[in-house]
Amino acid sequence: MTHGASGTPRPDNTVGEIGERRLLSHLRSRIPVAPGVIVGIGDDAAALETGPLTLVTTDALVEGVHFRRDFTPSHLLGRKALSVNLSDIAAMAGVPRYATVSLCLPADVTVEFIDGLYNGLLERAAETGVVIVGGNVSAISGPLIIDITLLGHGDRLLRRSGAQPGDLVVVTGTLGASAAGLRLLEHGARLSADGDLVDVGTFAPSAQNDLLHCLRAQLDPAPPLAFARALSEHEIVHAACDVSDGLSGDLLNLCQESGLAAWIEASAVPVDVCAGNLGSELGADGFSLALHGGEDYQLLMAVPPQALDALKDVAVVWDLAVTPVGEFSEGAPGVSLKFGDALRRLRPKSHEHFRDPERGRRADPDREA
Amino acid sequence: MTHGASGTPRPDNTVGEIGERRLLSHLRSRIPVAPGVIVGIGDDAAALETGPLTLVTTDALVEGVHFRRDFTPSHLLGRKALSVNLSDIAAMAGVPRYATVSLCLPADVTVEFIDGLYNGLLERAAETGVVIVGGNVSAISGPLIIDITLLGHGDRLLRRSGAQPGDLVVVTGTLGASAAGLRLLEHGARLSADGDLVDVGTFAPSAQNDLLHCLRAQLDPAPPLAFARALSEHEIVHAACDVSDGLSGDLLNLCQESGLAAWIEASAVPVDVCAGNLGSELGADGFSLALHGGEDYQLLMAVPPQALDALKDVAVVWDLAVTPVGEFSEGAPGVSLKFGDALRRLRPKSHEHFRDPERGRRADPDREA
Repeated sequence: MTHGASGTPRPDNTVGEIGERRLLSHLRSRIPVAPGVIVGIGDDAAALETGPLTLVTTDALVEGVHFRRDFTPSHLLGRKALSVNLSDIAAMAGVPRYATVSLCLPADVTVEFIDGLYNGLLERAAETGVVIVGGNVSAISGPLIIDITLLGHGDRLLRRSGAQPGDLVVVTGTLGASAAGLRLLEHGARLSADGDLVDVGTFAPSAQNDLLHCLRAQLDPAPPLAFARALSEHEIVHAACDVSDGLSGDLLNLCQESGLAAWIEASAVPVDVCAGNLGSELGADGFSLALHGGEDYQLLMAVPPQALDALKDVAVVWDLAVTPVGEFSEGAPGVSLKFGDALRRLRPKSHEHFRDPERGRRADPDREA
Repeated sequence: MTHGASGTPRPDNTVGEIGERRLLSHLRSRIPVAPGVIVGIGDDAAALETGPLTLVTTDALVEGVHFRRDFTPSHLLGRKALSVNLSDIAAMAGVPRYATVSLCLPADVTVEFIDGLYNGLLERAAETGVVIVGGNVSAISGPLIIDITLLGHGDRLLRRSGAQPGDLVVVTGTLGASAAGLRLLEHGARLSADGDLVDVGTFAPSAQNDLLHCLRAQLDPAPPLAFARALSEHEIVHAACDVSDGLSGDLLNLCQESGLAAWIEASAVPVDVCAGNLGSELGADGFSLALHGGEDYQLLMAVPPQALDALKDVAVVWDLAVTPVGEFSEGAPGVSLKFGDALRRLRPKSHEHFRDPERGRRADPDREA
């Protein structure tokens, strides 16, 4: 198959057909010029206006581990690749600014797929004030990879260390919908590139609202960016991180970084209602999905009890729920789960990629909490 | 196989055995604390002191495309993964400062391999004043990948655009040794982790100096960092880029970015002597390797003729050869090769990954210039 005339690749061209140079040239033509960028794509390095404190984070989506091409439209994949990094900058109370995009592309990937990916990336970037300033494209005999490094501006940072004994464990939004969404994909449910429900899979059509909600949480996560940034203007939160690996694992990490223990009141965990509704059909219960599922991209915080009302005042501005689910305490780093008066040590079940690379990032609610 | 006691993984443990968390914890323990880093590894994002102008570049080494594990000791692979990015910051006349390291690791990779990789990375970082501030580790069912994003400080930048008609085409060092080195590896020659020659492969022991030189150029490239940085203090160079894809391709890119044509005098190209010596045994001639081979990580510059002596004065401080090889001129972007009075249009032969992902990055001297 040959490429189209006049240098513009056709949607059905593969990257193997058009080659690295033409692909880079094609991608470059799609990136808008933007303020703050002194040198953009096409030079040895990008040159960017920065302030005295720059945040940097990097997160990759690896095919077969973090996504499947038959599960996700490329448009949503592009959005998510940026969103998982946006979540990290938000968890530092920063402002995202510049992204570099490193792609590893098997030779059979089409221009249409990559255009979809960039549509999503650029759309999400425009929504959040991010400029794509450079990147890299490499061939690979293996899975497709999107590795993004996101730079941001920071001033008053939210750290993972800094939680105090007596601080409340507080989480934004609801938990478990993303993990439920992954299971829905495995049962054949699908979204279109625009995020509409196009296949209910093995589920009843009457479940469509629950399906849509959970699939979107998985394929197009929406971290609470504005709320997190607003926290930099208040002295409310002692420590924070995003919930990417799952509440159990991320809370353990906060404990380790702060040198504290913590407990969670089981009944207080804000289990996503749609995930709960679908749980039984998924062979999973909503609570386990909420506790261990991961990829919620909500914010997990250590908040002194007297500041909870102030936190709620900030959250209400952004129409965001904030829920106290437990408390930090003196003790060896670890997380316990409270069922009424019973306290049980929680073993984090967050996904460990290396131990099960084929399974992808998913909850394992079959094992008991 | 189980891991060692007290949490320290054994060298023969695989990443599949120890899991992502323990690997991250192990790597984190190896990264030194450094000035400028307000928040280092372990939080959602790193927080770094920056100036008003920050350079950023990203370059990945993909197994099977850019390296083979049986060709390169992990120590040298770590050094090279940073060096290819250092070269990009140098080509902007910047100062490298902070790196994030994104690894995709097949489950069978050993802790020993990753420790070797980090030995090399940290050694090269210490040599060049770079601090590793974060990164990401992901499982992969596929090749090993090291994707580094390097941030640097910039002030007076060397751009790819800006060459003027009449400017000389000038290159640092010699060309072709790295491409020769790749061919030597294919013929069984090997370096140790310390960069010593441990196997001459199919070559005569008397060739050991040539072998060593070319293998090091391929496995442990040394871009002219100090020289390039020194150029920011002079108004000598109109445009520059690094020679990563090969002189023919990179010069074409400078032409495109500057809207000019250029010619190269064939006899002026500084063909690496060792590559030339080994050429016939490699089934390649040194000139083709120098013209198209790539991965030289030298600097390619547009220099006004009256400034050539000043450039040489800077270069001599760093014990670096600078060689004028041709000239920029008005005309459609393109590169011609001069053999005495004959002028021939040069079709760039720089490697195109997607068209031949299995062959890796190598020169193709079988095709004529």
